[in-house]
Amino acid sequence: MITRDQLNEKLLKAQYAVRGPIVIRAQELETQGRKIIYCNIGNPQALKQKPLTYIRQVLSLLEYPELLERPEVLAQYPKDLVDRARMILKKHPHGTGAYSQSVGIPFIRQAAAEFITKRDGIEAKKENIILTDGASKGVQAVLLSLLKKENDGFMIPIPQYPLYSASIDLYGGKQIGYFLDEANGWQLSEAALVQSYESAKKSGINPVALVVINPGNPTGAVLSKENVQMIIGFAKKRNIAILADEVYQENVYASGKKFHSFAKTFSELNEKDLTLFSVHSVSKGFLGECGHRGGYLELRNVPNDVLAEFVKMQSISLCSNISGQISTYLMVAPPQPGDESYEQYVKERDGILNGLKRKAEILAEGVNKIEGMSLDVPQGAMYAFVKFELPIPKGVDPQGMSETERLAFEEERDTAYCMSLLEETDICVVPGSGFGQLPHTLHFRTTFLPLQEEIETLVAQLKKFHEAYTAALAVQ
Amino acid sequence: MITRDQLNEKLLKAQYAVRGPIVIRAQELETQGRKIIYCNIGNPQALKQKPLTYIRQVLSLLEYPELLERPEVLAQYPKDLVDRARMILKKHPHGTGAYSQSVGIPFIRQAAAEFITKRDGIEAKKENIILTDGASKGVQAVLLSLLKKENDGFMIPIPQYPLYSASIDLYGGKQIGYFLDEANGWQLSEAALVQSYESAKKSGINPVALVVINPGNPTGAVLSKENVQMIIGFAKKRNIAILADEVYQENVYASGKKFHSFAKTFSELNEKDLTLFSVHSVSKGFLGECGHRGGYLELRNVPNDVLAEFVKMQSISLCSNISGQISTYLMVAPPQPGDESYEQYVKERDGILNGLKRKAEILAEGVNKIEGMSLDVPQGAMYAFVKFELPIPKGVDPQGMSETERLAFEEERDTAYCMSLLEETDICVVPGSGFGQLPHTLHFRTTFLPLQEEIETLVAQLKKFHEAYTAALAVQ
Repeated sequence: MITRDQLNEKLLKAQYAVRGPIVIRAQELETQGRKIIYCNIGNPQALKQKPLTYIRQVLSLLEYPELLERPEVLAQYPKDLVDRARMILKKHPHGTGAYSQSVGIPFIRQAAAEFITKRDGIEAKKENIILTDGASKGVQAVLLSLLKKENDGFMIPIPQYPLYSASIDLYGGKQIGYFLDEANGWQLSEAALVQSYESAKKSGINPVALVVINPGNPTGAVLSKENVQMIIGFAKKRNIAILADEVYQENVYASGKKFHSFAKTFSELNEKDLTLFSVHSVSKGFLGECGHRGGYLELRNVPNDVLAEFVKMQSISLCSNISGQISTYLMVAPPQPGDESYEQYVKERDGILNGLKRKAEILAEGVNKIEGMSLDVPQGAMYAFVKFELPIPKGVDPQGMSETERLAFEEERDTAYCMSLLEETDICVVPGSGFGQLPHTLHFRTTFLPLQEEIETLVAQLKKFHEAYTAALAVQ
Repeated sequence: MITRDQLNEKLLKAQYAVRGPIVIRAQELETQGRKIIYCNIGNPQALKQKPLTYIRQVLSLLEYPELLERPEVLAQYPKDLVDRARMILKKHPHGTGAYSQSVGIPFIRQAAAEFITKRDGIEAKKENIILTDGASKGVQAVLLSLLKKENDGFMIPIPQYPLYSASIDLYGGKQIGYFLDEANGWQLSEAALVQSYESAKKSGINPVALVVINPGNPTGAVLSKENVQMIIGFAKKRNIAILADEVYQENVYASGKKFHSFAKTFSELNEKDLTLFSVHSVSKGFLGECGHRGGYLELRNVPNDVLAEFVKMQSISLCSNISGQISTYLMVAPPQPGDESYEQYVKERDGILNGLKRKAEILAEGVNKIEGMSLDVPQGAMYAFVKFELPIPKGVDPQGMSETERLAFEEERDTAYCMSLLEETDICVVPGSGFGQLPHTLHFRTTFLPLQEEIETLVAQLKKFHEAYTAALAVQ
């Protein structure tokens, strides 16, 4: 029998907190009949966000194209979407049931390129777009491709989305953390990047690319244009590629804040040499179609022989799922003014985005009223990375510990806190140690995806729990 | 800019012939207006196989559940499928738009376990089923997990499906080929397994698992029960796990032949120690739903801590796509006698399977009439691995070459042959060297998926091409 010690050590090492022990415990509690509020993961439709109708209408016709022959059924659909379904089947007659080309259906890659052009006013090429099962698969393709030597590593933010840390571990690369500046709205600072880069180099680790998540996960920060420019300058000077995770590009709430894509900023800087990988997804934004696993990877400034290797890697996995590819198409080519479906599309889109903005504010306001907790209103994305403090139990002296002991003590604390929160309140959040945090600080990440009234309840429960938990610790 | 020499050498090394240079050339020709017959890949619906209606009816309702509120639409659907869609939404209210648990939706895992129990009359546990994006992802999870040391390798058949060779290369493992016995209907021989194992050991390579594809790809062989028993005995004696690729389990055509699952044979041998991984998929069988990327991996005889690592690996990729999970559910729980949809289901299923059987026969009969070509009628799966001979051009002396030179010469020959076949006839097949073959033999793999009349045309074109090609070679 295969035993654990026969398994790949890289797999054993990899950790994925967003779906780790706390979530496994939540699932156990759920089977016991408890109603868990899953704030551990950006999964909007599991928290009652409704799918955009136009996406699902087109998908239903494509799954069962015979509906297109039945007038009594088509009467239920906006005319433009019926036309759209017919157009898709004309361009891609195999529908949802056949493998496509490995890199995706050509007209959808073209539509994604046009989406970038329209968004940024810059050139984008179909040939440089690869359709993927969610953004994760695009990210993993980049990570796996760029790891050449054992001491190659990726610069990743702290805190970061654990897809990065887990995949880097799984593929045998090195994590090179750089700290985001919590006091400065979680922007990147050049000093932190330089410090991280230099210190990696000193330890014999070779940074091959810089990962930037914008808007940020778990921080919710939206990077300013100057920040994006600074990052490009930093990478350019060291000739390391940039991997831009831009899946939250539609999720910008703070007034005066705007999403600045790396592709556009590259173009403004006339940057034609540095390599840029960027990913987008149907799972986030206002679609929230996580279950459909659709997305794309765009490669910029790569030679053809590098592109060919990415195409080959896709071919080993055959192709991304076709419903996901079509969802991606519908994301990059939504209904237009004049279309019968347009009004409902706009109403649903704005309803979701306005709701998220409101919920981010309610959450922050509520959290800031809790003694020992603080949070800037998230500017974007779907998460709040809440900072909290806990009293030190009597007889424990963190300052007297070695740094390693102290970090272990802190990791245990935020994990115990989140586990206890789950057990007491059915609220499932992820400890900050799963994302990385400044030493001697404590955080947890929660989404602000639940319904507004649930967020209000959640804040009240959190307050009650936190007060009881800290009181109990203080008398220990 | 990232250059090719900065890429992961394992990626550079990996080859995937099924989607390699010949297919890339075919796609180019297609954009020039040529009508390519894609026999390079088992992609039934791209070759006009119709999807099973019941699958698509349920999927259309789940993509757009509002249809369930519209009587005029439901009148178009069999009642049992409307009930089924409602039942799925009751058990899984998030529908297709949310991430599920990483290992898949619980009731679907349960249904897959019940399918195994019903198929084999043996116990199967939901906990040991992981739903995956097609079988490929299950295979890759096993390959990546079991590679612990640099000299670890997998025993894979020659010829094999290049998912194995490519993924093993990509993850940095060793390929340990064992020859299938073409003269004996491509069964496995214990001698060939022992020879392969011993020779790997002698070269310092450590076999960690044995891959068996049954029914075979590209061979079409269906393994006898005695053969499966022999394989288990071989693996048991050396304590190496078995990875059984059983995606063609429904594709058995030869009279008197039957699919014998490894799980069932394990049970008959009362084998409770040896680890077995087996994969299944919605892409093959009579469903041919390649584009939906659905499937499952079953783990047997694994300790809980090993299972936990597989669960963790799935969590890093979030979950497989939900339409694919639902397709998998519908595959393992098809309509039953008495259901309104049953009659059409049976008619479609039997139509496809009988058609494949007939087409395998027509292909073999036609091929065997071509001078210098031979093929046993494929017993199962979707492929024919056609053996062919070419005259040696004047002045070339293969016997006078070193073994390496001779293999390179032969690889060039079958590749040139397939490329020329494509250019001359628009038929896209894959050279035998992409799958591996006995030295000094030549093959190509073709599917027998095109429509019957197209297969007839294909055989006629192949004959004409082969005669002209060999005649030209003979006078060189």
